[in-house]
Amino acid sequence: MQTFSKRVSMTVVKRLPKYYQYLTDLQDQHIEKISSKELAAMMGLTASQIRQDLNSFGAYGQQGYGYKVKELKEAIRKILGLDLQYNCIIIGSGNLGHAIVNYERFKEEGIHFKAMFDVDPDQIGKKVGNVTVYHMDDLDAFVAHHKIDICILSVPQKVGQETTDRVVELGIKAILNFVPLDLTVPDDVVVESVNITDSLFTLTYLINEDDDDE
Amino acid sequence: MQTFSKRVSMTVVKRLPKYYQYLTDLQDQHIEKISSKELAAMMGLTASQIRQDLNSFGAYGQQGYGYKVKELKEAIRKILGLDLQYNCIIIGSGNLGHAIVNYERFKEEGIHFKAMFDVDPDQIGKKVGNVTVYHMDDLDAFVAHHKIDICILSVPQKVGQETTDRVVELGIKAILNFVPLDLTVPDDVVVESVNITDSLFTLTYLINEDDDDE
Repeated sequence: MQTFSKRVSMTVVKRLPKYYQYLTDLQDQHIEKISSKELAAMMGLTASQIRQDLNSFGAYGQQGYGYKVKELKEAIRKILGLDLQYNCIIIGSGNLGHAIVNYERFKEEGIHFKAMFDVDPDQIGKKVGNVTVYHMDDLDAFVAHHKIDICILSVPQKVGQETTDRVVELGIKAILNFVPLDLTVPDDVVVESVNITDSLFTLTYLINEDDDDE
Repeated sequence: MQTFSKRVSMTVVKRLPKYYQYLTDLQDQHIEKISSKELAAMMGLTASQIRQDLNSFGAYGQQGYGYKVKELKEAIRKILGLDLQYNCIIIGSGNLGHAIVNYERFKEEGIHFKAMFDVDPDQIGKKVGNVTVYHMDDLDAFVAHHKIDICILSVPQKVGQETTDRVVELGIKAILNFVPLDLTVPDDVVVESVNITDSLFTLTYLINEDDDDE
């Protein structure tokens, strides 16, 4: 494999974490090579889609051999930026915040949780794993003294945008958003949203669509 | 507006929860009508996209008036199947399970949490809100005695597929999946997945793509 281009279409980007997951699982099972056909069967894609996706960043499988699992995994890891380290804060120390801090997988991938913030007096000073919950009043000072790359936002909807504005003002350039809101941010800030409600409501749609078929 | 067709393209379906969210917010603000242009500006779409989306299930705005917020919201609510009631169980009583049970919004929309299941002896018998945590050994009996529509799956990855198989075996037809796995299910079972890891890794990609631009 040659050098990899980082400029990939968003459709492929959205599939990269999935490739990464499957390749990690294959490596854990000590599987050294995989054909586009085998990978396609695992991922519910076609072999030609797989080849096209991987070609797009310069990962060409060898004919009659396929892809080297470790090499391909490392290539995708780099493209995803997971060879770097990220300092994170979590705003909102509810159950979702707890779930994220405790998620083993993130630690393995260079995602470091530095602090949680909340306004609930009962939460302030508590520790989640080895992450301390601070008051929102301490946010500015904390961010000023630590290089924070990512803010995970898990606050009530009604303060979602104002909290975002504050985070942006402090110079944080990436937000993982759990608030059911389309956040407005400047062009140099990236937001990725996880909307659990949307997923549940898509499911209730699908349940009834299925009924109609019967 | 006339009767609404339920057969809508998946692209539109995926946007319906968002329309529903915005229309709910508008109604909460006592706004009675909205033009496709205004709705487009709020949602980051074009007015023609909005009209096309809504036309596709028979919701036609009136020229020079726009859409009646309440009527449109109710139409989308019905299409999403949110006029019905759903009995849910949650398998995996970790922080994520707790977060979901405590999510006020779901209760308002006819989503009823009937029980949680876990294998951790420390969790069994506990109550999360008014939802009891039972042992996985009691799953079959519970499902046999309650009509369960949706299973929310939040178990470790290594038992993700086997738990799914068991849930499917028990006749549950819809799964909201938080396990980072592409679950294999029969055709008559619907799965909607929320993959927090994928979203975070997309974000780390976007952070570095941004850097390249500078």
